[in-house]
Amino acid sequence: MALFAGLAAYPITPADADGVVDASALRGLVRRLVDAGVDSIGLLGSTGTYAYLTRAERLRAIEAAVGETAGRTPVMAGIGALRTDAAVALARDAKAAGAGAGLLAPVSYTPLTDEEVFAHYQTVAGESGLPICVYNNPSTTHFTFSPSLIQRLAAIPGIVAVKNPAPAKADVAARLADLRARVPTGFSLGYSVDAACAEAMVAGGDVWHSVLAGLCPELPLDICRAALAGNAALARRVNGRLQPIWDLFTRHGGLRVVYAAATFMGLSSARPPRPILPLDPVETSKVEEAFKAAGLI
Amino acid sequence: MALFAGLAAYPITPADADGVVDASALRGLVRRLVDAGVDSIGLLGSTGTYAYLTRAERLRAIEAAVGETAGRTPVMAGIGALRTDAAVALARDAKAAGAGAGLLAPVSYTPLTDEEVFAHYQTVAGESGLPICVYNNPSTTHFTFSPSLIQRLAAIPGIVAVKNPAPAKADVAARLADLRARVPTGFSLGYSVDAACAEAMVAGGDVWHSVLAGLCPELPLDICRAALAGNAALARRVNGRLQPIWDLFTRHGGLRVVYAAATFMGLSSARPPRPILPLDPVETSKVEEAFKAAGLI
Repeated sequence: MALFAGLAAYPITPADADGVVDASALRGLVRRLVDAGVDSIGLLGSTGTYAYLTRAERLRAIEAAVGETAGRTPVMAGIGALRTDAAVALARDAKAAGAGAGLLAPVSYTPLTDEEVFAHYQTVAGESGLPICVYNNPSTTHFTFSPSLIQRLAAIPGIVAVKNPAPAKADVAARLADLRARVPTGFSLGYSVDAACAEAMVAGGDVWHSVLAGLCPELPLDICRAALAGNAALARRVNGRLQPIWDLFTRHGGLRVVYAAATFMGLSSARPPRPILPLDPVETSKVEEAFKAAGLI
Repeated sequence: MALFAGLAAYPITPADADGVVDASALRGLVRRLVDAGVDSIGLLGSTGTYAYLTRAERLRAIEAAVGETAGRTPVMAGIGALRTDAAVALARDAKAAGAGAGLLAPVSYTPLTDEEVFAHYQTVAGESGLPICVYNNPSTTHFTFSPSLIQRLAAIPGIVAVKNPAPAKADVAARLADLRARVPTGFSLGYSVDAACAEAMVAGGDVWHSVLAGLCPELPLDICRAALAGNAALARRVNGRLQPIWDLFTRHGGLRVVYAAATFMGLSSARPPRPILPLDPVETSKVEEAFKAAGLI
C-alpha cells in the first residue's frame, strides 16, 4: 500500500489572511509531487496548517488535492481536532472526498489521559470507517504515545499506521524493533522530523513523512530509495547535503522555512496563518542561500 | 476595579454532547457566585472549556452570564483562539455582549515565538478595544511568558492584567516584587493554580483566579479576605482544610474534579467535552468524600 510505504510528502496549504484556501496554488504544489513520483501526499499535516483551517476549507483542500492527483498518488489528510465529534466529521469528509487515510493527532488543550486518547481514536476509526494513521507529535499536541498505547491502538480495526518522531540515531533500531513486535504484520511504522528520518529509513522504517519533500521531493526520494535498497552509505551521503536545511528546520520550525522557500521558489506567496509570522528578510535570505547551496533550487 | 482584585470565580460551561451551551444551567451557576459575593466571574476560562466551544456558543454563554449578573458582578470572558483573526472576533463579541474584559491565552499548535505572541496580543487589544488580561497557562498553551515579555505586553494600551500560575511558596514574594517593578501602577497581577494561590495572595497578589470558587466560592472568599486583611495565619488555616481538594486537582486536573462535583451537588449533569472523560464512579466517590470532609457540601 503506497500510502504507508516510502516517501510521504507534506505540502503547505496556501490560504489567504482569512483562512480561505487557494485551491489553484495547492493544485500546483500537488502536481509537482505527483510528477516527481512521491509515494503519497500528506495533505493538511502540521505544515499544512490543518489546525488553523475550518472544516469547510479543509474539505475544499482535500477535493482540490485528490482531484489533481486523479488517482495517480494516494492522499492522506489531517483530520485532527480538539473535539472528538469534530474529528469524526472531518474523517467522514476526508473519506467522502477520496482521501485514502486520515492522519489523526491528539490535539489537546486540557492535557489528555491515555484512556481519553484511546477512546478518541476508537470513536473516530469506528464512526468514520476511514483508515487512520496515529500521529504522534508531542511538540504540537503535547501528548506523547507510549509504545504500549500504540500497541493497544494498533489492535483497533481501521488503525493501520503510526507516524512517530524519529528517535536519535543511537536508539532508532532498538525502538523500531520494539514497536515492530507490538503491532500486527502490515501495520506501518513511519517517521517524521526530517533531520532524523534518513537514519530511521536506514534502520527499516516504512515511511518518511517529510516536510521538505512537500516542496522539494527529489533529494528525499533519493534518500528513501537508497535506504530501502539497503544502500545506507548513499542515503547518508545525500542526507549530509541537507544538514544545513535540517539546521534551519530546527532553528525556525520546518513550517516557517518552507513558507519562505515556497515564496522565493515562486510557488506560493501565501503567508502562514497568524499568529505565526513569516521569516524576516534577513532569515529568508539565509534560507535561500542554504537551498541554493544544497542544490534544491 | 473589582474585575482585577480579590476573588475571580471560574464556573464550568454546561453543554451537551454537541457543544450546545445549556444557558439555563449556566445562569444557575452564575447566580450562586453573584449571591456569594465573588469579586468577578471568569467565564469561559480553561475550566469553562472555551477552547472546545464555537464562536456562536461562546457568545450565547456570555450573554447568559452577563444577563444573570445584571451589573452586580463584572464578567471577564475567555477569548483565546488559535488564529489571531478568530481571537479578534471573539474579543469584539465579548465586548458587545457586555463582558468587562477578555482573558487571552496564546493558544498554540505550531509552537510560537515571543514576537508572534507579542503581535497577537497587540492586534487583539488594538482591534477589539476590550481590556485584556494576559493568560499565562503553560500547561494548556505550552507557551511560557517570561517576565520581560509580560513587561513589554503591559506597555500596550488596553492590556491591563496578567494571570500567572502561582509560583511555589518559597519564590512567590520575590517573583511578585520583580513583576510589580516591571508593570505600570494599577496593572493587576493575578494568580491561578488554586493549590498555590493562598500563598500568592498572602504575598500580595491582586487576584486569585479560582477554579474551586466557580462551584464553591465560600472558603476561597474567606481565604482571599483574610489574606487581603493581612491575616496570613487565618488564610493558611482555611487553606489547609482544602489541601485534600488541591491534591485531587493535581491528580485529575481541576476540570475533571469540578465536573464530577457539579453533578453530585445537583448543579449540572453536563459532561466535559469529549475527548475529555468524566471521572469514573470510584474516583467520583472519593471526590464527594473529600468535598464532604472539607465542609464544601
